[in-house]
Amino acid sequence: MLASDSRTHAGVDQVSIYSKMHAFGGDGNWMITLLSAGNLATTQAVVRHLRRDIEQDAGRHLGKLQRLAEAAEYVGEISVAEQARRAQVAEESFKPGASFIVAGQYQNQPHQIFLVYPEGNYIRASLQNPFLQIGESKYGKPILDRIIEPGVDLEIAARSAMVSMDSTMRSNLSVGPPIELQIYRTGSFTTGEHFEFEENNAYLVELRQAWERELKQSFARLPRLPVQSSRMRLVD
Amino acid sequence: MLASDSRTHAGVDQVSIYSKMHAFGGDGNWMITLLSAGNLATTQAVVRHLRRDIEQDAGRHLGKLQRLAEAAEYVGEISVAEQARRAQVAEESFKPGASFIVAGQYQNQPHQIFLVYPEGNYIRASLQNPFLQIGESKYGKPILDRIIEPGVDLEIAARSAMVSMDSTMRSNLSVGPPIELQIYRTGSFTTGEHFEFEENNAYLVELRQAWERELKQSFARLPRLPVQSSRMRLVD
Repeated sequence: MLASDSRTHAGVDQVSIYSKMHAFGGDGNWMITLLSAGNLATTQAVVRHLRRDIEQDAGRHLGKLQRLAEAAEYVGEISVAEQARRAQVAEESFKPGASFIVAGQYQNQPHQIFLVYPEGNYIRASLQNPFLQIGESKYGKPILDRIIEPGVDLEIAARSAMVSMDSTMRSNLSVGPPIELQIYRTGSFTTGEHFEFEENNAYLVELRQAWERELKQSFARLPRLPVQSSRMRLVD
Repeated sequence: MLASDSRTHAGVDQVSIYSKMHAFGGDGNWMITLLSAGNLATTQAVVRHLRRDIEQDAGRHLGKLQRLAEAAEYVGEISVAEQARRAQVAEESFKPGASFIVAGQYQNQPHQIFLVYPEGNYIRASLQNPFLQIGESKYGKPILDRIIEPGVDLEIAARSAMVSMDSTMRSNLSVGPPIELQIYRTGSFTTGEHFEFEENNAYLVELRQAWERELKQSFARLPRLPVQSSRMRLVD
């Protein structure tokens, strides 16, 4: 189960919408989805590079590998190479870094999920850390920490990702719709179910309103502090 | 209303407990509380510097100023000076930066609250931004975004700060108890009510458990996604 937003920005006057979810595969023997965060030029260069290697049937490409860890290694190497290529003439403030989530499955292998850091190194999800995040991850982490556990129901995992994304969007303008959601069924070697939720999507609006209402009602039921009530005045 | 945690760390093997809430004043004409985040040596040096200036009745000190903006300016200048003093022989990875919240009131002035950045510049809370955060602020921001508004009840503000701190502690080990809470009553020129919640404080434990339970129940009531349920398998 993967989810991503679509907001990207290079300064406040250049906010754009780009998909950050990229699917590779299709011959029924392997399937990989890449999520990206960070410098948009780097992430686009990496995706182009990965696709070109497949099209040109290069000596190494995603379809020729056999384990997802190899795919994570390969994505990391390309990412570092693309960053280095642009860093030579760069100003000091230039930040070409990008992070990726590499998720999928090769034939006769388990499905897996890796996080590739800007430095090219990578980690995988584990029983102790059953979910991975890249990009603006902190606002939306508390709800995932509470809901996601190994063996969680797929619908619940997807729903908590939607709530996590919604909390992040509310607290940070650099994250925004459409929200993409992909649900891969192990052994299917297809992109599986793919959802795209625009800002005014009926489900997203209903979820957002329900969560806001639930949170406020939940909060109101919490034990009171032994503090005398009084309205706070804010001097403006 | 101010809240702070007490965890500080310089690498994983040096996690310590220090109060990050420092009160100044006491003669009934002014009252300032400082919250600190960032490099512990810098924040301690700044607090020592502020206290020393008062004790030695320096040409300028917190008690001689007349507006809270002047206090923020003064704290910013001292912070920058203390950072610069240590940066001369520093390695490149040395990060002396510290942030402060300066809150309080001078006689015949409104109560106010400022955030002082590591660079010494500062902003104040406003009707559009009715709360300020420093340090590990993102995990706990969504609940504040939903609850805090101008004119909010003081007890609710304090309770939401406790929930915000608890969410942050759950998602990030570098934030930890005791949690301190200060409630200043406008015009009182005293430290007001001061609470300290240790890890196993009965109220904190009850709040934590209630919030966990409420969040899970709230989440369960959210609209379902049109996705077929199945347990997710995690390959470890």
